[in-house]
Amino acid sequence: MSQSDSDLIPVAGNGLLHRRLFLKTGLAAGTTLLLAGTTGSAAEKPQRDPWMRMPGAPMSPIGEPSGYEQNLVRAPIGSQPGTAGTGVSRTPLQYLDGIITPSRLHFERHHAGIPDIDPDLHRLYLHGLVERPLAFDLAALHRYPQVSRIQFLECSGNSAALAAPRPVAETCAAIHGLISASEWGGVPLTVLLEEAGVKPEGKWLVADGADAAVMSRSIPLSKVMDDALVALHQNGEPLRPANGYPMRLFLPGWEGNASVKWLRSLKVTDQPAMTRDETAKYSDLRDDGVAELFTFPMGVKSVITSPSPGLSLHGPGVYQISGIAWSGQGRIRRVEISADGGASWAEAALDEHVLPKCLTRFRAAWRWNGGPAVLMSRAEDETGSLQPDRDAALRGRTHAFYHFNGVQAWQIDETGASSNVYA
Amino acid sequence: MSQSDSDLIPVAGNGLLHRRLFLKTGLAAGTTLLLAGTTGSAAEKPQRDPWMRMPGAPMSPIGEPSGYEQNLVRAPIGSQPGTAGTGVSRTPLQYLDGIITPSRLHFERHHAGIPDIDPDLHRLYLHGLVERPLAFDLAALHRYPQVSRIQFLECSGNSAALAAPRPVAETCAAIHGLISASEWGGVPLTVLLEEAGVKPEGKWLVADGADAAVMSRSIPLSKVMDDALVALHQNGEPLRPANGYPMRLFLPGWEGNASVKWLRSLKVTDQPAMTRDETAKYSDLRDDGVAELFTFPMGVKSVITSPSPGLSLHGPGVYQISGIAWSGQGRIRRVEISADGGASWAEAALDEHVLPKCLTRFRAAWRWNGGPAVLMSRAEDETGSLQPDRDAALRGRTHAFYHFNGVQAWQIDETGASSNVYA
Repeated sequence: MSQSDSDLIPVAGNGLLHRRLFLKTGLAAGTTLLLAGTTGSAAEKPQRDPWMRMPGAPMSPIGEPSGYEQNLVRAPIGSQPGTAGTGVSRTPLQYLDGIITPSRLHFERHHAGIPDIDPDLHRLYLHGLVERPLAFDLAALHRYPQVSRIQFLECSGNSAALAAPRPVAETCAAIHGLISASEWGGVPLTVLLEEAGVKPEGKWLVADGADAAVMSRSIPLSKVMDDALVALHQNGEPLRPANGYPMRLFLPGWEGNASVKWLRSLKVTDQPAMTRDETAKYSDLRDDGVAELFTFPMGVKSVITSPSPGLSLHGPGVYQISGIAWSGQGRIRRVEISADGGASWAEAALDEHVLPKCLTRFRAAWRWNGGPAVLMSRAEDETGSLQPDRDAALRGRTHAFYHFNGVQAWQIDETGASSNVYA
Repeated sequence: MSQSDSDLIPVAGNGLLHRRLFLKTGLAAGTTLLLAGTTGSAAEKPQRDPWMRMPGAPMSPIGEPSGYEQNLVRAPIGSQPGTAGTGVSRTPLQYLDGIITPSRLHFERHHAGIPDIDPDLHRLYLHGLVERPLAFDLAALHRYPQVSRIQFLECSGNSAALAAPRPVAETCAAIHGLISASEWGGVPLTVLLEEAGVKPEGKWLVADGADAAVMSRSIPLSKVMDDALVALHQNGEPLRPANGYPMRLFLPGWEGNASVKWLRSLKVTDQPAMTRDETAKYSDLRDDGVAELFTFPMGVKSVITSPSPGLSLHGPGVYQISGIAWSGQGRIRRVEISADGGASWAEAALDEHVLPKCLTRFRAAWRWNGGPAVLMSRAEDETGSLQPDRDAALRGRTHAFYHFNGVQAWQIDETGASSNVYA
């Protein structure tokens, strides 16, 4: 296989190519670009393949994935023996592409399992420091003005495995799979608060879930007035039970736990409730002994999903590097890739949709020479925040667990296999 | 229930309200907006609901929809008795919201069923008027630069039921459900054509599918060079078999049939192949006896999905009207709603993401007085094309079947029920 070297001049160390290969204008050169991934000649084309010799399967009420795609599952992990509903299951990031996470593969984090809620019996109670305490059923909520937006949700404990003293031998999903993105639709919470009439002393909103653990979090009203939703839809359809059916709080860009699932009660208060779920958990102990309470926005972050552990390269040549970047503060401005462990960086191409508080898909073309390489990505958001390297992200956080957003490094060895390393 | 009339001044006949109710600035008025949909007082709030008394279901590899949501299915309809794989199944539009269609509910239109393709054995052959005839396997394609974009796919036979002389008593899905939108990801076809090297006399591309019917369509190279994909991913995961697994052609904004599923062969030619699938079908006979061949782009169109047949209103008051608009030529610029059968129109609010060649979700607030009403929507795209009314859409098309994009009207009767009418 030949390559036109003039189109493949590296722009950073160890074979990273220019991102114009992903732009329409970059493809009009009229010369061969890669020839790296071709597998044969069309002269071999047989008249028919086996599955063309008889009619295929009939249409169906539900279109299921191919039986050949057995990797498209989450791996549930319980926190405690004997408590099957407590723990996490992670999105299989390394087998996905684009920015939408299929709803059935959205990550889970539950504290007392998934309640089986009858939507006709469920109510949302809005009370506390309001003029008119109200109760809404699902049919009532559907009559209100709604909006929909594509945004990410990330558990604040995501990527905490990178704080381990030695690199864990795990996949991208196992380390980073508590991040997903969906189209979330529902009623802006401002509309419902207008209905109830917030009293002047109301400053916080305490949200309770209808799970057996009664997940409870305090949210400043300023965020609620900005962009909070009572979400009813995910990716076009009603929420699924694992994501809060029939309704959940959705707080764009904030730690996932605060977007209370199975939302049942919203109480307007003059101060935070200091619930178990925001004091015993979801706060970080600093090295000076002070706990960081109410660390809501998730930091700017990125990770290469392919290649990554479990996805091997097959021989030297050109490959697509692909990954996701996001920030709780807004849009992603830029993602850079390194193939030499951070010694040099090349700018990645971003897919067309760069949306606020959403996953952004980035890509780069890389000519692997068959030798060792360390792949890394780092993102910058529109506020100028830059994803820190691992050391900087850990500084002052000896006892911290949540909100880790340091750079991930994948080591590629001579066989083409990838592994988690600290670079 | 009281309403603050100052915030609810109609802007068009029969109760249509101003779209500022859907804008953040329109909600900061500090006064009660609706109170139309509230169902009680939070004073009734019980301590616990039944499903809060014990731990819920454990986490799982796959997050399924709620068992209470039995409407989230497609209804397969065969074209011919005894040929289960020939026909359509439609997206249940009236039970969905937002712009993403869940992949399992994407519409189907097959001509010989769904082939069960082994992805390791499948090849894409690129041949004809090229310098280097090539064959690609799936692993090879994954190494090429890719992109992803959220765009619609519409069968050119969608909405043809509105050409019937009398209005059919059907749902929104049954009339308009051959439209869906997904995030489509894959390799720009320009990249692969560069690899093969198109000869100067190459002007068309003939695409064949690996189904038993060998679906075959001719595509002008100008479209291919513009934005055609060899799609590998839909909504973040590998394509599902009903949508072309392991790969399909995707031609943004063009009639769905041309986006050949189970893509197997791409042959560069100097003229169209005039295949069965582009002459006997998918062309429209004009009243002057001339057939319109190669009518590729889908026109500007919209439909109200809620309320619509099967979704009843429950008593007078304020309701959200919601629907989808799209155009094969680009972005939606504007959608207007009428509640009086087209006598007057109000501008609808558009959800945040207005993407090119994609569904756009529109919404309006409407105060139903309990009397008869006829709801309609009409869309305009960024090129200035305006969706025609039904009469104009049918003009000169006595024998035509495909590409109908006239305005849909739903009659609301005094019971709150909706039905298909010609207004």
